[in-house]
Amino acid sequence: MIPSSRYNTRMTHTHTVRLTTKGEGDIRDLTPEVARAAEASGIQNGIAAVFVVGSTAAVTTIEFEPGLVEDLGRTLEQLAPRDAHHAHEARWHDDNGHSHIRASIIGPTVCVPVANGSLALGTWQQVVLCEFDTRPRERTVIVQVVGD
Amino acid sequence: MIPSSRYNTRMTHTHTVRLTTKGEGDIRDLTPEVARAAEASGIQNGIAAVFVVGSTAAVTTIEFEPGLVEDLGRTLEQLAPRDAHHAHEARWHDDNGHSHIRASIIGPTVCVPVANGSLALGTWQQVVLCEFDTRPRERTVIVQVVGD
Amino acid sequence: MIPSSRYNTRMTHTHTVRLTTKGEGDIRDLTPEVARAAEASGIQNGIAAVFVVGSTAAVTTIEFEPGLVEDLGRTLEQLAPRDAHHAHEARWHDDNGHSHIRASIIGPTVCVPVANGSLALGTWQQVVLCEFDTRPRERTVIVQVVGD
Repeated sequence: MIPSSRYNTRMTHTHTVRLTTKGEGDIRDLTPEVARAAEASGIQNGIAAVFVVGSTAAVTTIEFEPGLVEDLGRTLEQLAPRDAHHAHEARWHDDNGHSHIRASIIGPTVCVPVANGSLALGTWQQVVLCEFDTRPRERTVIVQVVGD
Repeated sequence: MIPSSRYNTRMTHTHTVRLTTKGEGDIRDLTPEVARAAEASGIQNGIAAVFVVGSTAAVTTIEFEPGLVEDLGRTLEQLAPRDAHHAHEARWHDDNGHSHIRASIIGPTVCVPVANGSLALGTWQQVVLCEFDTRPRERTVIVQVVGD
Repeated sequence: MIPSSRYNTRMTHTHTVRLTTKGEGDIRDLTPEVARAAEASGIQNGIAAVFVVGSTAAVTTIEFEPGLVEDLGRTLEQLAPRDAHHAHEARWHDDNGHSHIRASIIGPTVCVPVANGSLALGTWQQVVLCEFDTRPRERTVIVQVVGD
């Protein structure tokens, strides 16, 4: 006999997070939402792939506390200064060339393990959305939980 | 009764992209190939993991337009200048130490969500291969689509 | 008749790697462990998601040789200098603000394709753990192999 729980079980669960950011330098803790997605999926072992839609924001992990939010912002300002000349801005008459560059270097996605039904994050490690655009934005973050 | 579509369905589909780049600074839009891989898989919900084989190229997302290609190149030249001294070059008598460093910082992979059979990318967000090596290279990009 | 191999097969296999690093600048080749995880899973096609638990270390790919280990360390020292003022350190009275920043920029995870039972890495491309903390640390790396 074939257990019904097996062939009725999907292995991907999609969770969509919508939030409004305050613009450049706003870093938002996504961990509670990602944990909720993992729990709601019923998946015990797998991955939670977290992805931000759009090209001026990024997803990474950090110890989420105000000091590091400030330190990361300063480092990225030195790496890709807001006031540098950007060919993107000359071409499109906007002001967010540095936002795009920072987003592409950090990247739009992380994959967090789900093990025994929980996210395998460190105590001081949070999944965060980094807003790099120069104005407040409505953001969509998709969490795909894949596994058994 | 057990639906035959269930137990015959694989949940991973592999799609291989081969392309020849022009060398350092060549950024190539992979989005049409990744979308084709997602469509061909028949998977409705899951992830498309895009990975470049090799250690002098990277994969990320960007608004793919010539201004940002130029801006990203300039930022990476400041971060890891081509003409800096590289222990890698002293050791192996080549000229691409900076290419390796840029590739390791950006990273070889992104995971794009597949939702309702389509890639969940922003309108101005493309999946790109970044060639950092100093000469044209034949590149292999693997797209693994995993899901239901 | 339904093949028993189908409904008995899990599609996620979890492999945990524990190692002790030497502190800042220690880069460790994880490739043999990731390959072992892929092989032990029995999965022929899928992804191996490699994730480091903690916020002062990162995972990426690199040609793992001493020259590039030195070059990457120098580049990251210029990007996020150890001796810069860090709001994190002023707040928490520690010395690893730069370690957190480097870790968040590189990121905690890569997804390596598994194709025909093997990792699809380049010959000169290894999966590595980058220790950025200022002291030796016991690290946990989780490898989730997901696929068929």
